Amino acid sequence: MYTIINGGVTAAKGYKAAGLRAGVKPNKTNKDMAMILSDVPAVSAGVFTRNVVKAAPVLVDRDTIGNYETARAIVVNSGNANACTGAQGIANVKATMEEAAKALGIQAEEVLVCSTGVIGQQLPLDVILKGCNMLPEALSSEIEGGEDAAEAILTTDTCKKQAAVTLELDGKTVTIGAMCKGSGMIHPNMGTMLGFITTDAAITKELLQKALSEIVEDTFNMVSVDGDTSTNDTVFVLANGMAGNGMMAEENEDYEAFKEALTYICESLSKQIAGDGEGCTRLFEVTAYGAASKEEAKTLAKSVVTSSLTKAAVFGKDANWGRIICAMGYSGVNFDPEKVDISLESEAGTLQLVKDGIATDYSEELATEILSANPVRCEVNVHDGEYEATAWGCDLTYEYVSINADYRS
Amino acid sequence: MYTIINGGVTAAKGYKAAGLRAGVKPNKTNKDMAMILSDVPAVSAGVFTRNVVKAAPVLVDRDTIGNYETARAIVVNSGNANACTGAQGIANVKATMEEAAKALGIQAEEVLVCSTGVIGQQLPLDVILKGCNMLPEALSSEIEGGEDAAEAILTTDTCKKQAAVTLELDGKTVTIGAMCKGSGMIHPNMGTMLGFITTDAAITKELLQKALSEIVEDTFNMVSVDGDTSTNDTVFVLANGMAGNGMMAEENEDYEAFKEALTYICESLSKQIAGDGEGCTRLFEVTAYGAASKEEAKTLAKSVVTSSLTKAAVFGKDANWGRIICAMGYSGVNFDPEKVDISLESEAGTLQLVKDGIATDYSEELATEILSANPVRCEVNVHDGEYEATAWGCDLTYEYVSINADYRS
Repeated sequence: MYTIINGGVTAAKGYKAAGLRAGVKPNKTNKDMAMILSDVPAVSAGVFTRNVVKAAPVLVDRDTIGNYETARAIVVNSGNANACTGAQGIANVKATMEEAAKALGIQAEEVLVCSTGVIGQQLPLDVILKGCNMLPEALSSEIEGGEDAAEAILTTDTCKKQAAVTLELDGKTVTIGAMCKGSGMIHPNMGTMLGFITTDAAITKELLQKALSEIVEDTFNMVSVDGDTSTNDTVFVLANGMAGNGMMAEENEDYEAFKEALTYICESLSKQIAGDGEGCTRLFEVTAYGAASKEEAKTLAKSVVTSSLTKAAVFGKDANWGRIICAMGYSGVNFDPEKVDISLESEAGTLQLVKDGIATDYSEELATEILSANPVRCEVNVHDGEYEATAWGCDLTYEYVSINADYRS
Repeated sequence: MYTIINGGVTAAKGYKAAGLRAGVKPNKTNKDMAMILSDVPAVSAGVFTRNVVKAAPVLVDRDTIGNYETARAIVVNSGNANACTGAQGIANVKATMEEAAKALGIQAEEVLVCSTGVIGQQLPLDVILKGCNMLPEALSSEIEGGEDAAEAILTTDTCKKQAAVTLELDGKTVTIGAMCKGSGMIHPNMGTMLGFITTDAAITKELLQKALSEIVEDTFNMVSVDGDTSTNDTVFVLANGMAGNGMMAEENEDYEAFKEALTYICESLSKQIAGDGEGCTRLFEVTAYGAASKEEAKTLAKSVVTSSLTKAAVFGKDANWGRIICAMGYSGVNFDPEKVDISLESEAGTLQLVKDGIATDYSEELATEILSANPVRCEVNVHDGEYEATAWGCDLTYEYVSINADYRS
């Protein structure tokens, strides 16, 4: 039981945020640095990219989250990923932590740092440090502070991505707010999924990390814009306890309610990311039913949503179920093709395309109508068990190729 | 030691081929059926798709190859994949085998059948059977017979794909000839890699299958046009012994020489397929060096060649090494990012982009020149062992999206 509200990372009690242009992105006027501050130390949890190649801030933040119970601030820049930058890259993250801490009057180890943008170039450190000193003055607990921050972390994203909910815990109103940027690969280099969640709930670090890790598996990790996992992917949650609820320290009813609300937040952000994939025209949601295990359900759903052919067919409004069953077939999951059902759904209607592995006598016209709406849902069922999973993606368009081929022109 | 010669499936002694329009592809004038005939029973070997969803001809041919020592003929149609067609699809394959056998005066179990094209529609059986009766008259042992056949199996391929070599074995001239069609996903549905190799070598069925299975792993299975594995992928080799060499029955010097020549054939066809990927403008060849195992080398090379982002960067002539190292990083192979070297090569020159995980001070102009040539080679080295592997792919273009989104218009 939670209530969806307006807002982002400043929705919960005790958080301020800011976003502004420091000048990291050359020859542009976009905002490119953001800051989030909690008025009091907040329990911190994080999930990081599984790419073997990890950007400098990922390497540093992983230690910070692991070694310190709480954090106070997050500093983010877009325009430069600080990845493949060696020892200098690490030193630049530490310099950023120190400058931000000094400007905020807190400790360096209370600062988390994220970057997104070009790979393999050193950060323009003077610009970043200048930004660290400009941001504190701009911090606001109003909805606008969150909006500015949500804008400053974008790269080729076409819109800000935020979500917020409230729920009652222990007789108190607890709020969770969030912002993120997309996973599409980004001008001019590496796209990154960055997610920032703030809550005023009181919860132990251990439980917060457990909830986040589990939820990310079913939400952010089920998003596929182009199948590539970046060097910088990061999701943070800060929980500062200012709602005044009793500390959640075990997996009781309150924890389950909190986890449900946090799941909604992560799922909403995931859909916003998928629906704003580079060059995409619509969100494509695939649910696999009837799998023999949760893992197999996920693999099936992701294989369909990741297939370039399926994605191009969605763009072309073509009910090309052959590509869907083919993507299921090479996913690595074993199933009986003659038991497969496939259907499409959108606000324009619902249509079963395949029953027991063979095409139904469906209307191509209705199929095209369904595929013309946004979002488009596809349901597949292998009738081999009781597990299901949903993955989110988007269509593959000329614009995607254009963004990723021509970025220097 | 082998010599490259002109020709295709009729190059070796005792083979005839034909290709013509039977009418499988509606509203077109393209050739759409092909036949290969060996004058005498030929030892047969085959490798089939690993997709869980297998087309009807794959299911039938697997049994035919398994149950019978030899084959005489192969019948191929383009325009319809006969996949996801249930019991009727199987019956249609058998009817095709019987009709072709009758027309050729051979046994039904001596006929192999392949299909490529639309998924989920039943074969126009009357057209196929008519084709089975037209093809025998058109059979020719001349180079033109092979050319016609190579043309008739194409779908969205833009050119015929053939290769042939001779080698000396046991004092006799042995010839291997071949044709194939591309793996790009195909108008209007599922693309398929079909390969047909004919040789007059004398070799046991067991050794022929062993050679083919091993070679396919390093050649056809290292081609990636869009990462999708079709329901119909098939490679056949027929060996009719008419060269008169002593029967190869063990892995001796003759076998190694034969295998080397067969490897050349499969590698040549693989490159032709990759270089003619849907909408592609250039062949992209990636070799991973210094891997801890052969499997890891293959995984690294394939991950780079399959990445949509890398492919789009090649199209854009952009030396985007960040995408290359990122694709290596999410491949599942563990390596030290700070030991990675990356270089590009083409007829325009050679350029090291990355040394020890960090960008060299390379010339962007030269990089663009190198990427403007065709083919483009990329070499990556993780300095973690002695294994290497090569994968072949192509760039990702507007045309790819167009072919796969708009096929009904």
